[in-house]
Amino acid sequence: MSQAFHTWMKNKQLECEIALANLLPQITVLPERLHEAMRYAAMDGGKRVRPLLVFAAGHLFNAPADMLLRAACAVELIHAYSLVHDDMPCMDDDALRRGKPTVHIKYDEATALLVGDALQAQAFQVLSEGDGDAVAKLSMVRLLAQASGSVGMCGGQAIDLASVGLALDRIQLEQMHRLKTGALLRASVLLGAMSGKKLDEKELQALDAYAAAIGLAFQVVDDVLDATADSATLGKTAGKDAADNKPTYVSLLGLSASKQLAEQLRCDAHDAVEVFGNQAQLLRDLADLVVQRQA
Amino acid sequence: MSQAFHTWMKNKQLECEIALANLLPQITVLPERLHEAMRYAAMDGGKRVRPLLVFAAGHLFNAPADMLLRAACAVELIHAYSLVHDDMPCMDDDALRRGKPTVHIKYDEATALLVGDALQAQAFQVLSEGDGDAVAKLSMVRLLAQASGSVGMCGGQAIDLASVGLALDRIQLEQMHRLKTGALLRASVLLGAMSGKKLDEKELQALDAYAAAIGLAFQVVDDVLDATADSATLGKTAGKDAADNKPTYVSLLGLSASKQLAEQLRCDAHDAVEVFGNQAQLLRDLADLVVQRQA
Repeated sequence: MSQAFHTWMKNKQLECEIALANLLPQITVLPERLHEAMRYAAMDGGKRVRPLLVFAAGHLFNAPADMLLRAACAVELIHAYSLVHDDMPCMDDDALRRGKPTVHIKYDEATALLVGDALQAQAFQVLSEGDGDAVAKLSMVRLLAQASGSVGMCGGQAIDLASVGLALDRIQLEQMHRLKTGALLRASVLLGAMSGKKLDEKELQALDAYAAAIGLAFQVVDDVLDATADSATLGKTAGKDAADNKPTYVSLLGLSASKQLAEQLRCDAHDAVEVFGNQAQLLRDLADLVVQRQA
Repeated sequence: MSQAFHTWMKNKQLECEIALANLLPQITVLPERLHEAMRYAAMDGGKRVRPLLVFAAGHLFNAPADMLLRAACAVELIHAYSLVHDDMPCMDDDALRRGKPTVHIKYDEATALLVGDALQAQAFQVLSEGDGDAVAKLSMVRLLAQASGSVGMCGGQAIDLASVGLALDRIQLEQMHRLKTGALLRASVLLGAMSGKKLDEKELQALDAYAAAIGLAFQVVDDVLDATADSATLGKTAGKDAADNKPTYVSLLGLSASKQLAEQLRCDAHDAVEVFGNQAQLLRDLADLVVQRQA
């Protein structure tokens, strides 16, 4: 990772953190406990890969800062809500997330349910407020809703749950991940770019190919890390997918072929954004980050 | 209830049912079980009070049909999602809704969680698609998000949960209901009106007063029915609030004073929309419906 990219990343992560702190209701606002739990779920979290994708794609077309920051926060709020619900006992039943107790452990199940629900609403609120062209923003709302819903992220979760203990083949596994994590990663890339301009068919195809490659790479690397890293490094329970008898790329292809696949997808992502030239350097760096991360 | 109003109501309920059937993903679309469960939760349900409010308020300003229908479906999808999550074991733990098994009973808890999440996303998708002025639609998205989130419906749920077993006074009880059910009823009225025109301060105030009155009336009547009707009539478990030791208007004011309050609020609602003259007849009829309903 270049020093310039590292500095950019740290700046954007901080910018996103500050914006979320400002956009989420203060903990002095009624109901205080819900607002405290929403911040617990959304703040100080993870690598902010989705916001980084928004910023990097926005850089392609010099998107205005306010729209970009709102799009970045919106995708992160959707991601945060999905983690809260995903960790609940009726779903993955996980007690640890980003090295901290999950929301239903720290608070309670009912609060976790409401935190997720409220964070989703907050995402659409954040995206629909602020400056910017109404036509563009409305299509961004539409895109985020599609990517989050039953033919996007939620649909992927449903397929994931239904597939526990089943012998999915590679095509089925890919289809599940394309919805479960891929849809929101794609939305992040497209929302960033759409903040800058109305995309033509060629741009949309290039960004779709990039998003498909890093979306899949993200999951392959997740599976590799789940099989090789420890819980302390991951900040969540390691080896959980295997223990839950969930199909993974490692169980399907083996460790070595999974690593090769991730590297291939990294190259695919680079190729996809060739058309944007130098302006796409941040997207290339992010593809490297997704594949080469250690947690 | 006049015959004309009854006919209007039946027509609008049917229109809403057909629109929901068209807007929700077909059950042949992957993931099939999730889409089946979403339809189970959202279709063939209740009196559609919120859509009726949208249509009645839209009638004030001759709002275009497509925008109005989308707004009606959006509020109903939010309402449907909130019922699914509210019925879950970690919330109210209810097995019966509209005379049928609740979603987590009919399917399972994980599916109920995802159905609610996906219906919420669907609401924002429905509202952001279709014809109509983008500026107006974007402010409608914003309003619906605020009304659904942590300072609206979700916030009301959180206060409700926190108040079980507590001796709330009348002001606290009102505050809770203003968020829990009032926020979405208010949004229904405003979204209907906003589909027709950008509201001026005077119109907004009148509609706010109307919405506040029927929102509160709705809850008072709910409490009266919960204390007096049987489960078969209600289509849900009767006497549950008292059994759960939840504060209600009946426990606070007694049955007779609660009925008087509902009647007073009905008159307040009528007074509030006086300014709109004959065009507000549907809103007046709806206020009567809310107060005089038997289930």
